[in-house]
Amino acid sequence: MNTAYPFVPALREPEGSPIRELFKYLSDPQMISFAGGYPSAALFDAPGIGAASAQVLAQRPAECLQYGATEGAPALRRALTALMAERGATVAPEELLVTTGSQQGFDFLVKALVEPGSLVLVEEPTYSATLQALRLAGAALRGIPADHEGIDVEALEAVLEAAAAAGERPRLLYVVPTFANPTGATLSLPRRLRLLELVARHQVVLVEDDPYGALSFDGAPPPSLLSLCAQVPAARPWVVHLASLSKTLAPGLRLGWLAGPAEIVRRAVIAKQVSDLCTPPWLQLTAAQYLDDGRLPAQVAREVAAYRDKRDRLADALRQAFGARIRFALPAGGMFLWAAVDGIEDAAALLPHAIAEKVLFVPGAGFYAERRPRAAFRLSFAGADPAQIGEGVARLARAVAQAAPPHMR
Amino acid sequence: MNTAYPFVPALREPEGSPIRELFKYLSDPQMISFAGGYPSAALFDAPGIGAASAQVLAQRPAECLQYGATEGAPALRRALTALMAERGATVAPEELLVTTGSQQGFDFLVKALVEPGSLVLVEEPTYSATLQALRLAGAALRGIPADHEGIDVEALEAVLEAAAAAGERPRLLYVVPTFANPTGATLSLPRRLRLLELVARHQVVLVEDDPYGALSFDGAPPPSLLSLCAQVPAARPWVVHLASLSKTLAPGLRLGWLAGPAEIVRRAVIAKQVSDLCTPPWLQLTAAQYLDDGRLPAQVAREVAAYRDKRDRLADALRQAFGARIRFALPAGGMFLWAAVDGIEDAAALLPHAIAEKVLFVPGAGFYAERRPRAAFRLSFAGADPAQIGEGVARLARAVAQAAPPHMR
Repeated sequence: MNTAYPFVPALREPEGSPIRELFKYLSDPQMISFAGGYPSAALFDAPGIGAASAQVLAQRPAECLQYGATEGAPALRRALTALMAERGATVAPEELLVTTGSQQGFDFLVKALVEPGSLVLVEEPTYSATLQALRLAGAALRGIPADHEGIDVEALEAVLEAAAAAGERPRLLYVVPTFANPTGATLSLPRRLRLLELVARHQVVLVEDDPYGALSFDGAPPPSLLSLCAQVPAARPWVVHLASLSKTLAPGLRLGWLAGPAEIVRRAVIAKQVSDLCTPPWLQLTAAQYLDDGRLPAQVAREVAAYRDKRDRLADALRQAFGARIRFALPAGGMFLWAAVDGIEDAAALLPHAIAEKVLFVPGAGFYAERRPRAAFRLSFAGADPAQIGEGVARLARAVAQAAPPHMR
Repeated sequence: MNTAYPFVPALREPEGSPIRELFKYLSDPQMISFAGGYPSAALFDAPGIGAASAQVLAQRPAECLQYGATEGAPALRRALTALMAERGATVAPEELLVTTGSQQGFDFLVKALVEPGSLVLVEEPTYSATLQALRLAGAALRGIPADHEGIDVEALEAVLEAAAAAGERPRLLYVVPTFANPTGATLSLPRRLRLLELVARHQVVLVEDDPYGALSFDGAPPPSLLSLCAQVPAARPWVVHLASLSKTLAPGLRLGWLAGPAEIVRRAVIAKQVSDLCTPPWLQLTAAQYLDDGRLPAQVAREVAAYRDKRDRLADALRQAFGARIRFALPAGGMFLWAAVDGIEDAAALLPHAIAEKVLFVPGAGFYAERRPRAAFRLSFAGADPAQIGEGVARLARAVAQAAPPHMR
């Protein structure tokens, strides 16, 4: 398949996103999708964003349209620092980098810290694009199991000790501790503190990917790992926090940030210099204006109310359709529900039946470092039309009835 | 300097931009800068861009603010394909990727094709961020000399043959053939054709970085290497063309594109999936609207007139101040003039004197793969205030008078 460029080694043969491969089915207007991790476009505050953008362009046209500082526009850096402080984390200017979406922050960490063959630890299951980025960089991936309370810190400790005994040092440890992708799970507070102790003791860079924390359905979300470094100060030089406005303001603005130790931020800034130089300043100033105007909390409240309702509709429909045959933990925030149904050993084999029934989900296999069939699958409720959730689940139940072995139908 | 993260190997100790290190001096309001490669903010069409952005947001809010296709928004892909056709190159949809600035396109090529130790060829001198990106990736850099007619194709052929004899295959060959950064030089037509024959014969991916081609002061620019593949069809699978709206529309939009063989574009798309997922759709649709409205040619004409005038002012002032002691070739377009003055063996040693006189330029050393003192330096005329060019050159002459050996003052 790669005959034209035979000099490219197998290592670099890249792997496409398992989720994006499903997008071709979205052109079918009959399709009901629980697949993509898209926020609901119906909730976007286009008028508010448009007004902020027109205001900053009129006031500061040259700053909007010229190259900007690689670290980010000062106005947005100030606004994000204030947002982090509200969320309990004090971040100095040299500890913050604005990125073109939070995924870019992870890409820069990989570029700065990972080489072919580097050992990298990820909780399992985990965000598929993280696995994709690490595989593209040639990392040696090792999965650490996670359950409904997040990463298994005992299993992690065993792996860290075995690695240390073997003279290996993981370059990164990646977790989504709050309303995780794909599981919706949230790392418990005792595990958060234990995780920080472990990375401090083993001197491993811990990446806390936190795009969903603001979407908390039951009051404030748990404190971030970054903010908990106040209790475990030895962990602070090892924690890098990735955050985003994609799930709260709008993903199309491609605005995220990286907060972490100055030495790591310095390396990420240089990776950004050679990548996109700077995140579009106009969009940065637009977001800063929106944040400074105090509009984000009301927007997030609208999203939380809508997503909580959709989660409840989805959970109710799943229980009604599958009864005791389905297993899932109710997510306390975010966009995803992770489920498995008795009789389905490989969710990837269920998918063609679902597509035939005109419903989409993401099979679990794409979220694991080790590739083998997985029973579980991811359902995204955030982007779904609430009126269609019940019908989508009914289609899923028909697909399961076709795919399950006869005695399980 | 890196005690906190001792596990990071020396290979990955990144190098900052030699140009960005000068930016701290720009806060001095007395400073006259010929340093940064910034277009003139005074020429930005902020009203036109603002109107296009408001229009697309009103018409297609969800498309503007939601995640978009990694390959780029269909409307912009169509507009850019049309622009390429006007410039003589036919590009199929699967041969085009929208990037967040053209530099990101090069970053993806590096990610897809270069590993630590990979041999990469660059014309010398060349764009400093290209060297930075390649060094960050651990490439083995080899410079090929260039003169006022661009890369020396005889020298290139000798290097390619020696590499082939040694069983080495360069992963990339990077050139800026039209109004080059830093030299302003333009590759002659005979050399263009010879270059294409060489990459076809040696099966080396040729990166044609072309951000400046539209800024041609004397009629149409020479045909791009990509368009010349019509005459050397065997070269087509080996040519990747990088282009940008940064130097014509506005750099702050961060809109560039990569046009090349589908197999390479496919790899770049995957690199983009794990980096920024997509370029901000709102800005893409804004640019597409602007292009579809036919506004770009008039904007480029304004820029060409202004930059030609500034080039002439700079060249006249240099000749007047230095007479026969200065050597430079008049650039036929773009933003840069590359000069050397008798008596200055190391332009980096001249720089502190220039800063004391309150004028900035970029010393030549940062544009070479091999690091050693260089006599030449880069003067950017595009961003300069035309009324200050003469005074800037007078300051430069005073700095030279201080830095040159006594008999040369």
